[in-house]
Amino acid sequence: RTLRIGLIPGDGIGREVIPAGRRILESLPSSLGLKFDFVDLDAGYEHFKAFGTALPEKTVETLQKECDGALFGAVSSPTNKVAGYTSPIVALRKRLSLYANVRPCKTVLSPAFRSPSTSPIDLVIVRENTEDLYVKEEKTYPDPNGDGQIAEAIKRISTQASRRIATIAGEIAARRQKMRQKPNGEAAQKEAMVTITHKSNVLSQTDGLFRSTAREALAAPAFSSLKIEEQIVDSMVYKLFLQPQYYDVIVAPNLYGDLLSDGAAALVGSLGLVPSANVGEDIVMGEPCHGSAPDIEGKGIANPVATIRSVGCMLEFLNQPEAADVIYNAVDEGLREGKFISPDLGGKASTEEVMDDIVRRL
Amino acid sequence: RTLRIGLIPGDGIGREVIPAGRRILESLPSSLGLKFDFVDLDAGYEHFKAFGTALPEKTVETLQKECDGALFGAVSSPTNKVAGYTSPIVALRKRLSLYANVRPCKTVLSPAFRSPSTSPIDLVIVRENTEDLYVKEEKTYPDPNGDGQIAEAIKRISTQASRRIATIAGEIAARRQKMRQKPNGEAAQKEAMVTITHKSNVLSQTDGLFRSTAREALAAPAFSSLKIEEQIVDSMVYKLFLQPQYYDVIVAPNLYGDLLSDGAAALVGSLGLVPSANVGEDIVMGEPCHGSAPDIEGKGIANPVATIRSVGCMLEFLNQPEAADVIYNAVDEGLREGKFISPDLGGKASTEEVMDDIVRRL
Ligand SMILES: CC(C)[C@H](C(=O)O)[C@@H](O)C(=O)O
Ligand SMILES: CC(C)[C@H](C(=O)O)[C@@H](O)C(=O)O
Repeated sequence: RTLRIGLIPGDGIGREVIPAGRRILESLPSSLGLKFDFVDLDAGYEHFKAFGTALPEKTVETLQKECDGALFGAVSSPTNKVAGYTSPIVALRKRLSLYANVRPCKTVLSPAFRSPSTSPIDLVIVRENTEDLYVKEEKTYPDPNGDGQIAEAIKRISTQASRRIATIAGEIAARRQKMRQKPNGEAAQKEAMVTITHKSNVLSQTDGLFRSTAREALAAPAFSSLKIEEQIVDSMVYKLFLQPQYYDVIVAPNLYGDLLSDGAAALVGSLGLVPSANVGEDIVMGEPCHGSAPDIEGKGIANPVATIRSVGCMLEFLNQPEAADVIYNAVDEGLREGKFISPDLGGKASTEEVMDDIVRRL
Repeated sequence: RTLRIGLIPGDGIGREVIPAGRRILESLPSSLGLKFDFVDLDAGYEHFKAFGTALPEKTVETLQKECDGALFGAVSSPTNKVAGYTSPIVALRKRLSLYANVRPCKTVLSPAFRSPSTSPIDLVIVRENTEDLYVKEEKTYPDPNGDGQIAEAIKRISTQASRRIATIAGEIAARRQKMRQKPNGEAAQKEAMVTITHKSNVLSQTDGLFRSTAREALAAPAFSSLKIEEQIVDSMVYKLFLQPQYYDVIVAPNLYGDLLSDGAAALVGSLGLVPSANVGEDIVMGEPCHGSAPDIEGKGIANPVATIRSVGCMLEFLNQPEAADVIYNAVDEGLREGKFISPDLGGKASTEEVMDDIVRRL
């Protein structure tokens, strides 16, 4: 089977890591029976500066019409408002209905670097990817009670999106439970669990709807072997820091998911390690969780692991779990051996050296 | 001078720690020249269940008309929507115009317990306390495109509130800078700094307004000795975990401040250590950052340190810095000696033992 993959490097180190992603796909063992072809696509702030748009229609159309999967690098976002500029990654998620952002965070114990978290963690953050404050419906008006302005944004939560994200979180937890099952029938050590995160004690309608819908979706018979918990988001941040090893699958509305996944990335040691898959009905887009990292751009030292693992995530959600495992295992082995470790983890290896080491292990 | 202090224990362990707060005030050395009298006030979920209101008008009025300061314990919030119930702490902050929530997080190195953060941290989170999603303006309507509902909440940011919170953050940073100044004129080790936190790359109008207003307020000559930085909130969570010792004063809109302060609390080892002051023009309300902790309620083992330090915070913002320092130093000394350490930190001491130990050191 041939899978067509759109490659969208974007800005900054996105341009350095996406080639590593392509190279991994090209180097997969032929025994997997998978073939890939590639189409290069534009997006990003640099593209905006050159051509006046951060997300050309051609990119969206090609992804919609031709591609099974995609790899997205990173975009630089100006913190100052720039007229006409809007984040292409947020737009892509919406335009392609990539409703789930799945972010696995896993510690690999290595002699070469230390993870900040004392005990190994292995959790997945399942972030709703289309609504919440990311609908970006904002308005500004003069303050009637004084000088200055008032700006408002809408946080939108729907039953449909909440149900869909809770369901995929449940499916992921069930799949993980199965994979942890020991061959001899021993129970797996870690409890299979979904933790629903919200702030319904303040936002009783929006987060309340997320909470109750997720509860309902996860009460389905398919999920009866899972423990279903909930955690108010501020406590979730607290507990994520103090006992991250406890958690399995965490499901959250868009913005909380954004913050929690950065927190979890810190716990495994570097954003350079953390992958994601933006999952939709028609296409799956792998995306490293890190940004465009202007400080190290062009130096050839960006950690390609997040992107390489994102290739694994993409394949996992394209129903190619064997291929995904080949990639995950090669990465874990490389980290565990610890010979080629990039500077974000305290090592000296270049992007290319890390990539070569992983390719060798495929 | 006699200061009148409203005592609002609220629910759960709030009822166990607020008496410790009162006791500290009563035990301050008379050389400070301060006198206190107290008025007991109701609020909370228990009060709601008994009398149908979580925040009696009498509580609000007494605080407004009679009190210089107040101590608030904690409230239980049902995660399920309960008709008529609304969080009294959020309401109090709004009704009393307690515009700033100041949350200092400081590591005390102790032989008795280990903080999760490898190097000692000493930072203050200055959280806007009146707007953002906490305006709680929500609505729900049927989803026109399918079954189920859509719920919306408004995130509101104003120039006025943003300017006010940035200004007090600058003042706090300047005061800290002065206090760190070594007597012999050596420069203090830590750079005096305010970090503005926002998500203006997605919310260009609301968080954009917060960002630009804070930038402007902190460009005032009074703050020229401070370094002013900004950090997108997801990166802020990441960096807070990875290099918390770098930060000095972090200023944030309401919700981000809520999450960041729980994260910082984890880094110093326990929410049981972290105090706050809700600061307004007319009254200052001390409040431990922890919740009502139903799991340990009634056992007499709640850590009173957060409340005792909150008494310090309250006095600091009532312009009684000497009294505040007496309290802070007594707490730090007790923790450093490590003889009376509560169970949240791995010790065995009861609320009363920890309190007695601190009172002895005043
Ligand atoms: C770049 C930004 C718009 C994006 C987000 O907030 O979703 C990023 O932080 C992420 O997590 O993918
Ligand atoms: C109890 C809750 C409404 C409150 C908040 O979100 O502000 C609490 O988390 C806090 O930080 O004081």
